[in-house]
Amino acid sequence: MKHFTQFEHRSIADRLIDKALAYKKNPRIDLSKGLGKRVGCIFLNPSLRTRASTQIAAMNLGMEAIVMNMDKEGWALEMQNGAVMNKGTVEHIKDAAAVLGTYFDVLAVRAFPSLTNKKEDIEDFIFSQFIKYAGIPVVSLESAIRHPLQSLADMITIQEHMIAGKNPKVVLTWAPHIKAIPHAVANSFAEWAIGCGHELTITHPEGYELDRKFTQGAIITSDQKEALQNADFVYVKNWSAFNDYGKIHSTDSSWMLTENHFKNAPNAKVMHCLPVRRNVELSDEILDGDRSIVQKQAENRIYAAQAVLSDILEE
Amino acid sequence: MKHFTQFEHRSIADRLIDKALAYKKNPRIDLSKGLGKRVGCIFLNPSLRTRASTQIAAMNLGMEAIVMNMDKEGWALEMQNGAVMNKGTVEHIKDAAAVLGTYFDVLAVRAFPSLTNKKEDIEDFIFSQFIKYAGIPVVSLESAIRHPLQSLADMITIQEHMIAGKNPKVVLTWAPHIKAIPHAVANSFAEWAIGCGHELTITHPEGYELDRKFTQGAIITSDQKEALQNADFVYVKNWSAFNDYGKIHSTDSSWMLTENHFKNAPNAKVMHCLPVRRNVELSDEILDGDRSIVQKQAENRIYAAQAVLSDILEE
Amino acid sequence: MKHFTQFEHRSIADRLIDKALAYKKNPRIDLSKGLGKRVGCIFLNPSLRTRASTQIAAMNLGMEAIVMNMDKEGWALEMQNGAVMNKGTVEHIKDAAAVLGTYFDVLAVRAFPSLTNKKEDIEDFIFSQFIKYAGIPVVSLESAIRHPLQSLADMITIQEHMIAGKNPKVVLTWAPHIKAIPHAVANSFAEWAIGCGHELTITHPEGYELDRKFTQGAIITSDQKEALQNADFVYVKNWSAFNDYGKIHSTDSSWMLTENHFKNAPNAKVMHCLPVRRNVELSDEILDGDRSIVQKQAENRIYAAQAVLSDILEE
Repeated sequence: MKHFTQFEHRSIADRLIDKALAYKKNPRIDLSKGLGKRVGCIFLNPSLRTRASTQIAAMNLGMEAIVMNMDKEGWALEMQNGAVMNKGTVEHIKDAAAVLGTYFDVLAVRAFPSLTNKKEDIEDFIFSQFIKYAGIPVVSLESAIRHPLQSLADMITIQEHMIAGKNPKVVLTWAPHIKAIPHAVANSFAEWAIGCGHELTITHPEGYELDRKFTQGAIITSDQKEALQNADFVYVKNWSAFNDYGKIHSTDSSWMLTENHFKNAPNAKVMHCLPVRRNVELSDEILDGDRSIVQKQAENRIYAAQAVLSDILEE
Repeated sequence: MKHFTQFEHRSIADRLIDKALAYKKNPRIDLSKGLGKRVGCIFLNPSLRTRASTQIAAMNLGMEAIVMNMDKEGWALEMQNGAVMNKGTVEHIKDAAAVLGTYFDVLAVRAFPSLTNKKEDIEDFIFSQFIKYAGIPVVSLESAIRHPLQSLADMITIQEHMIAGKNPKVVLTWAPHIKAIPHAVANSFAEWAIGCGHELTITHPEGYELDRKFTQGAIITSDQKEALQNADFVYVKNWSAFNDYGKIHSTDSSWMLTENHFKNAPNAKVMHCLPVRRNVELSDEILDGDRSIVQKQAENRIYAAQAVLSDILEE
Repeated sequence: MKHFTQFEHRSIADRLIDKALAYKKNPRIDLSKGLGKRVGCIFLNPSLRTRASTQIAAMNLGMEAIVMNMDKEGWALEMQNGAVMNKGTVEHIKDAAAVLGTYFDVLAVRAFPSLTNKKEDIEDFIFSQFIKYAGIPVVSLESAIRHPLQSLADMITIQEHMIAGKNPKVVLTWAPHIKAIPHAVANSFAEWAIGCGHELTITHPEGYELDRKFTQGAIITSDQKEALQNADFVYVKNWSAFNDYGKIHSTDSSWMLTENHFKNAPNAKVMHCLPVRRNVELSDEILDGDRSIVQKQAENRIYAAQAVLSDILEE
C-alpha cells in the first residue's frame, strides 16, 4: 500500500514535482480521476493552509473531501495498547482508524508531537497508529517529525525559481520564536533538499542540533553569516531544541533575518512555511520585499497535495 | 411527511435492509437520485461515525450535505415555548428550525438527552421541536431516546452474519462504564430487534431496567450467564439507570465480556455501536478477536443512512 | 475588482434584486456558471444563516465553498501593521489574506466590530484588511459597520410583499436587547432602504442615534407611536449606542412590538434579520402571526448571495 509520509527516492520526488507543475498549469485536467473516491482529512491540531489546500487538491481531482477537526470536537483518542479506558479518552485509535478506513479511500492525518515525550515523538507514534490500523493509504498532513507535503511544495517552489543549469545553494536557518515549536518542517526540508540533490547548509545556535537522521549530507554551522554567503534560497524556521528535548535555549533576535543579512547573498530568495511571526522570525522588510517567495510556497501546497493524491489514485 | 425517527413496521425495516445491502454492493447506483437536493446535518452533540456516514450516504445519492456543529459553534437554542429570552439562549428552536426548513430538503438532527430532566427526555422534547417546526422530513441522528440509524445498521449486520434458516438468539447485555450514558442505543436496538422478529434477551444488573415501552416481547434477566447461553449475537452497551433516572448504580466489572463469558456460546458474534471504552465495556481480546463485528456495524452506517435518505427522496 | 461590501447605486441594487428573484424561481439555472470556481468563507464570528445560505448560493452556481471558522479554530490573526508578533496572534492578516487569495476565486468574510475601539470599527478596519491583502473579490458576510447581504435580502423581501404602484412606508425601529449589539444591520438597512428609494422612518430612544453617514434622507424620531403610523414594513432591530460607543442606555420594554403597537398600521409587515430574542426584541404574537415575514427574509438570503456571487463571476 502506498502511503505518503516522507522522502522516498529522488526519482519519486522528481516525478511528483513534474506532476505538480503540470497540475499548476492545468488544475482540472484530471477532474474525473478521483470520481467516487473520498479522502478523510483528520486534524488532531489546527490548520489553515493544509486543510484548504488538501480540500482543493481533492476537488481538483474530482474527489470528495470530508474534514474532521478532532482536536476541537472533543473526541479524545486513546493511543496506548491495552489501556483500561476509564479516564478521559473516548475511543481507541484502533477502532477509530479502522472505521475511518472503511469510510474513505485515502486518509490524511495531522498529528503534532507532544514535545515532552521524546521517545514517542521520534517514533512518530500517533501518526504510525493511523497507518497501522486504517488499512488504507495514509497521507501525512504533518506528523510529529515530518511535514512532507510542505517539503514537496518547497521543492516545487525552488524548482520554479532556480536558475537553469546552476545547482543552487540552499540554506536552512533557525530563527527565534516565543514558543517551543516542533522539528517537523525543518527535518522534512532537510530530508527533501538533500534527497533532491541540493547543496544544503543548516545554521542554528549551539544547542539546536536537529536529529542527525535528517541532516546527513548537509553542512552544519552555527555561523549564520558564513552560512548565508552566496545563498540562493534561505529557508527560515524556528524549532525547539532536540537534544534537550522541546526546550527553548535561545531567543537571540540577531538571528532574525533583515536586509542587512543579505549583503553577501544579493539574489537570495527567502522561504518560510507560514504561519510566520513577523518581526520575530522574519522582518517585515523581508516578507514584504522581493526576496520573499513564501506566498508561492503556500500556493504550491495545492499542487503538491494534488500530485500526491493523484499518485495514490493510480495504485 | 416522511420522517425517520423510529422502528415503524417490519415490512419497512425489511425493505430498508434490502435497499441498504443493494447500496453496499453498488454504492453509487443512485447517484442522480438526489441531484439538487440538500440535507442539513445539525449536531447538538459530538459525532464521528454518524457525521461521516451521513455525509457519505448523501454524496452517494448525489445530494449535498451541509454540517452544522451547533454544540461547538456557540449557538444555544431556546426550547421553551413563550420564553422571555433574556438569558443565554440566542435563538428559539421555532425560528432556527423553520429557517433550516427553508434551506434544506431534509434535516438530520442529533440531540442527546439531558439525563436530568426525565420528563423532557422521554418525550424526546428537543428532537420533536425540530420535527414540529422544520416543515420538512427529519431524520434522527440519535435523539434523547432512540438511535434508529444505528439500529438499522445493526439489523443489516445481523442479516449479513446470521445462518440462513435459523432464527438467531440475540442478546443485549449491559456493560460497565465510567459515565452516565443515554438509553437511546439500547432502546432502539430492543425496538428494532423485536420488531424484526428476532428472539431478544436483555440482561442487566438490578436497577438498570429499560423503559418498558421498548422492551415488550423480550426476555429480561439479571443473570448474564444464563442470557448468553447459546447466543448468536451479543450486543454490548452501557446505559445509566432509567428508573432512578440518569444514575450510575453499578460499575461491576464482572459484566465486562471476556472470552470466558462465551463458553456456552462458542459461535456468538459481539456487537457494539462504538465508540467503545476498551477493557471497561469490552475486553481487548473480544474486540480484537474473530467474534467482533463492530467494524461491520460501523461500515453499515453508511448504507443504513443511504437507504433512509433514498426512501425520503422517493416521497 | 468587484467587491460586495455596501450599497453602491440604485441601478445595481435593482439588478441584483431582479437577479435574485429569478434565481428564487429557478435556483439551478446557472449551475455551470461557477464550475471550477471556489469561494472561501472566513468566519471570525459565529454564523448559522449566513454560512448555510452562502454555501447553498455557491452550490447553486456550481461553485465549491470551503468554510473556515477561524474564531473557533484558534487561529488568532494579527491586524496591526509593523507588529512585533511575540504575543498571542499566530499569523498576520497580510499573510493569511494573501494565501487565501491564491486559494480561492472569491473570499467571503465575516468580521464583527469590537464595540470598544470606535475608530477601528467605523473604519471597518479588519474587513478592509482582507480587501487590501487578498487580491481577489471580497464579499461581506457582515463587517463591523455593514451587513449588505442581509440588506439585499431585505430589499428582495420588501419587493415581494409591497403593493404594486404604492411607495411603501418603511420603518426601522430600535428594540430592547440584553447585550451590546453591533450597528451593522441597522446601518445597512438604512443605507439600502434609502438608496432603493423607499420612504424610511427611523425611531429609537434618545441616545441611540445611528452614524449619520447611513441615515441621510430618513426621518428620525424618538416617538415610536408616530413612526409606526401607516407603516407598511417595520424592521425591528436592537443596536447599542453609537455616540456613547457600544453602551446600553435603555432596555425599556415598551419598545418591544406587540399587536397593540399596530393599531394605526393594520397591514404592516414585520421584519427582523434573525436570530431574534423572543419576548425581548419582539413578542411571540408578532413572530408567530401573519405580520411576520422574517422567515421570508431568511430564505431570501440564499438568493441575495447567489445574485452577488453570480455578478462577481461575470467580471
